[in-house]
Amino acid sequence: MLAHKTYFEGKVQSVGFERNGRRATVGVVDAGEFHFGTEAAERMTVVSGELWAKLPGESAWRAFPAGTTFEVPAKSGFDVKASVPAAYLCEFL
Amino acid sequence: MLAHKTYFEGKVQSVGFERNGRRATVGVVDAGEFHFGTEAAERMTVVSGELWAKLPGESAWRAFPAGTTFEVPAKSGFDVKASVPAAYLCEFL
Repeated sequence: MLAHKTYFEGKVQSVGFERNGRRATVGVVDAGEFHFGTEAAERMTVVSGELWAKLPGESAWRAFPAGTTFEVPAKSGFDVKASVPAAYLCEFL
Repeated sequence: MLAHKTYFEGKVQSVGFERNGRRATVGVVDAGEFHFGTEAAERMTVVSGELWAKLPGESAWRAFPAGTTFEVPAKSGFDVKASVPAAYLCEFL
């Protein structure tokens, strides 16, 4: 059963799925800056475009171009921003 | 402006975006077999899991695991199937 979710008035949207008992989503971040809290740990892989992220414990933004990945611990959060839309795969760890 | 689309009673869902004047979507194919017609040519990249595709002019199914890509000409179509959910990036060429 696929699950569409929309955040920030539609500026971040995802489609969630489950495979082999693991949850994941693919989605798009529109231009803007957003904060996400994490319940489970997450691995984010940029699949199109470029995302900037400010990770827990870091004070600077870092660029994550398509093909790169960052991980976020459980029960924390991260800031993400994009200047033009970028697509990602989010795997819950 | 991101655009959510749903096909085949929700068994294929995507989020569409545009960047640098080019349209693309990320989406998920749930377990099942589906046919898509193409208006524009498309490049499909599997980003999680595995899709099987039967491309125009081919009579056999081929497997496309995560990280691989296939292209479909404009004004044609292709069959796609999955045994468990798989995620893709679709770029309109």
